[in-house]
Amino acid sequence: MNASMIIYILGHVLRIEGIFMLMPALMGLIYQEKNGWVFLFMAAGLFLLGFLLSFKKPKNTTIYLKEGCVITALSWIMMSFFGCLPFYITKEIPSLLDAFFETVSGFTTTGASILPDPEALCHATQFWRCFTHWVGGMGVLVFLLAIIPMSGGSNINLMRAESPGPSVGKLVPKMRQTAALLYLIYFFLTILEVFFLVLGKMPVFDSVCTSFATAGTGGFGVYRNSFAGQSDYLQWVVTIFMIFFGVNFNFYFLLLYRYFKKAFKMSEVRAYLFIILGTTLLISANSFQLFNDLPDTFRHAAFQVASIITTTGFASNDFNLWPEPSKVLLVVLMFVGACAGSTGGGIKVSRFMILIKSIKKELQSYVHPKSVSKLSMDGSPIEHEVVRSVNVFFITFMILFTASVFFVSFDNKGMITSFTAVAATINNIGPGLELVGPTQNYAGFSPLAKIVLCFDMLAGRLELFPMLMLFNPKLYHTKPFYTHKIK
Amino acid sequence: MNASMIIYILGHVLRIEGIFMLMPALMGLIYQEKNGWVFLFMAAGLFLLGFLLSFKKPKNTTIYLKEGCVITALSWIMMSFFGCLPFYITKEIPSLLDAFFETVSGFTTTGASILPDPEALCHATQFWRCFTHWVGGMGVLVFLLAIIPMSGGSNINLMRAESPGPSVGKLVPKMRQTAALLYLIYFFLTILEVFFLVLGKMPVFDSVCTSFATAGTGGFGVYRNSFAGQSDYLQWVVTIFMIFFGVNFNFYFLLLYRYFKKAFKMSEVRAYLFIILGTTLLISANSFQLFNDLPDTFRHAAFQVASIITTTGFASNDFNLWPEPSKVLLVVLMFVGACAGSTGGGIKVSRFMILIKSIKKELQSYVHPKSVSKLSMDGSPIEHEVVRSVNVFFITFMILFTASVFFVSFDNKGMITSFTAVAATINNIGPGLELVGPTQNYAGFSPLAKIVLCFDMLAGRLELFPMLMLFNPKLYHTKPFYTHKIK
Repeated sequence: MNASMIIYILGHVLRIEGIFMLMPALMGLIYQEKNGWVFLFMAAGLFLLGFLLSFKKPKNTTIYLKEGCVITALSWIMMSFFGCLPFYITKEIPSLLDAFFETVSGFTTTGASILPDPEALCHATQFWRCFTHWVGGMGVLVFLLAIIPMSGGSNINLMRAESPGPSVGKLVPKMRQTAALLYLIYFFLTILEVFFLVLGKMPVFDSVCTSFATAGTGGFGVYRNSFAGQSDYLQWVVTIFMIFFGVNFNFYFLLLYRYFKKAFKMSEVRAYLFIILGTTLLISANSFQLFNDLPDTFRHAAFQVASIITTTGFASNDFNLWPEPSKVLLVVLMFVGACAGSTGGGIKVSRFMILIKSIKKELQSYVHPKSVSKLSMDGSPIEHEVVRSVNVFFITFMILFTASVFFVSFDNKGMITSFTAVAATINNIGPGLELVGPTQNYAGFSPLAKIVLCFDMLAGRLELFPMLMLFNPKLYHTKPFYTHKIK
Repeated sequence: MNASMIIYILGHVLRIEGIFMLMPALMGLIYQEKNGWVFLFMAAGLFLLGFLLSFKKPKNTTIYLKEGCVITALSWIMMSFFGCLPFYITKEIPSLLDAFFETVSGFTTTGASILPDPEALCHATQFWRCFTHWVGGMGVLVFLLAIIPMSGGSNINLMRAESPGPSVGKLVPKMRQTAALLYLIYFFLTILEVFFLVLGKMPVFDSVCTSFATAGTGGFGVYRNSFAGQSDYLQWVVTIFMIFFGVNFNFYFLLLYRYFKKAFKMSEVRAYLFIILGTTLLISANSFQLFNDLPDTFRHAAFQVASIITTTGFASNDFNLWPEPSKVLLVVLMFVGACAGSTGGGIKVSRFMILIKSIKKELQSYVHPKSVSKLSMDGSPIEHEVVRSVNVFFITFMILFTASVFFVSFDNKGMITSFTAVAATINNIGPGLELVGPTQNYAGFSPLAKIVLCFDMLAGRLELFPMLMLFNPKLYHTKPFYTHKIK
């Protein structure tokens, strides 16, 4: 284990977090709020601490996948811890655990809140809260890759540990450029959303915060009742941008480089849009009785479907009161999640596509036992290694999910609450059903449940293995690298 | 597709079902019930019909896996249809769909009942109802293999389609002897249970019916309140025999041939017993407050754990009223299921062992990316093919499960009811929670939900693929067998 390199990168992460905190400090200045000072001091402290940790670049800068995992897991835990201190110090969230929960929820783009009333926050804190979504959406280590140079093949191991989806590809030959390009697209789309929201007469500050929460597919609302009180126009703008941010960013990359045909043939994006359209129609049909108005029904259905499948978690309506089939569909969408390579969470559309392809292949093998065919996607074959790791991911996910429901159930809040609380956190959505429904919050859970849900949010955002690796005893063995001999 | 061979075997299945129906007819004679005549006429009719269908043995007796699947699926549907007619004709179950549901539930060893009061049935009908469990537990095609000779390697394709577990092995060199031996062990254990029940002063008729339901891990109770009213001794006897029937039958085979060491080293059996002990202790601790008595708590916990993990579905207590963590554990056990090669349902302990081993391997590969190791169980390596098919099974299971919950949710009975109704049928258990809890029944569901649940029971018992194959359009293509060419 290359400990000095781990510390070195963690130092850089802290420096970046320090720089990020200057933004809420600036908000404090603009809105003349005393809390701005807290952010300023935190920023200075974090930058100093980070500077000390990353003062000396280690001689050996090589990172293997295990170090990539450890760095990723520790970065996110550390960022959440230091990121929660302003909430606690300003007493806007009096409990440290709650502040940590809120920050983990922010960085992991979950949007599960312990706040009964987000409108009570001052501007600086509100900005920081929503900004964590924006940072978490693309990933801070990706950001790091974009700005600091690193040795050779090491950075792919870092990116692989942090990026969502079954496999990581470079968009352009150099990893660093890829990372910069991703952030550029991300930045541009966010600005675009701010523009359209302001056009719909939403205040600029609220538009920026909302765009952060949409871009990261996070879902922290600036309003007490999320999006229920907003105009139809604003609801549609957010619906469309939620869908945009759930698209595989390779799609935008292809558009940018004018590969239009290839972009619109991406089967994951097509499947993703098809699922959104299909479930929106189904839910519209099933919940029409609630609204008795076709445009209203369709808008609410589309908003909620987009919100849940992209794992954003905004709500335009209390879907906890919808008919059961609609609720079941929404819970299913929680697990489906957005496209790989987007800012969304969940299991991801492409993983499901691979899983369904492998079922088809199995059924095929019953009819023609001797036929041998390889799975393929977008014309290129899917490596066995990828299929295997998708399978393992799915099963690990289910086991972690089940274990979490068990621990949360000690709160005796009812099985639907326990089940959807875990589903909404491990998939980084935010609201679930019943006691964690869109009109409720997570404040009422016991400390044990909150810790479990924090772990789930982090595990879900980092795609399980970096977090689980921390519990792998083999990681801490100091014996030299060896290879199993097999026959 | 070898249609004439399919018809030939289906004919044999009908003949056997006809013979089986002589037993309730005999009960009718003993207890002087008019309904006995219904069974006698049905027996004669089925035997005649079966005789006509299997009159001429086809020239080509070769069966491939696809024919094995089709025969298995059609046999079970057909048996359930003809098996339900006596319930309907005697008017003991006035609705044909309900009668079909009850019979599917019987043959698939589910034990989900639409009867509010099983004590109201006459002896002949009650006997037939519980006897379907016994027949379904071991599988009627396995029975067929034991009594009629078939050509060469074909019968393994039939057995593979019907038998539970990730892989099918022959216990002795000849398939036919394997089948006979399985039935012998099965028969002996059933008799043994009858003996111990009668010893506890249970009436002989009830003991026989209860033993049928235990042996098949079915769970149809002869009493209105399942096992709640029975003595501690009887509850313990049933607990122990439920556990016995959930053990991989290879274990008994090894005992029979005096391979004691090998038998007790079977890792699946060990894991199975370990899970039972562990969850019993956890549930005892969690639900102690309900009983305030250690032996009572432990007995009820052990009974319910054994009942659920073996997918029997008897109840000694209304576990719907237990604390939430205990209920979550029971729901988890529903999915775990018993050992492969037992009469129990669910996903099976050995499948989970393989899945967990593959997760361990994945975590290992993060630490040592270049290490290549193969999974192994009981000292022998697990073929990649088996790992792959276990993965596919798990995912198919989850997708079918989710789709079923969606359809059942149209009944708007609440998500816990919908979820556990599907869990309890697809895993062949019987009772779930809330409206399908141990004190309730399935009569209140809509026809759509009942049909979906019937499909789930069959799919669960036949391990998904034979039933899903019926929907594979490739199956009905008449073009000649071909092999994909790949590079």
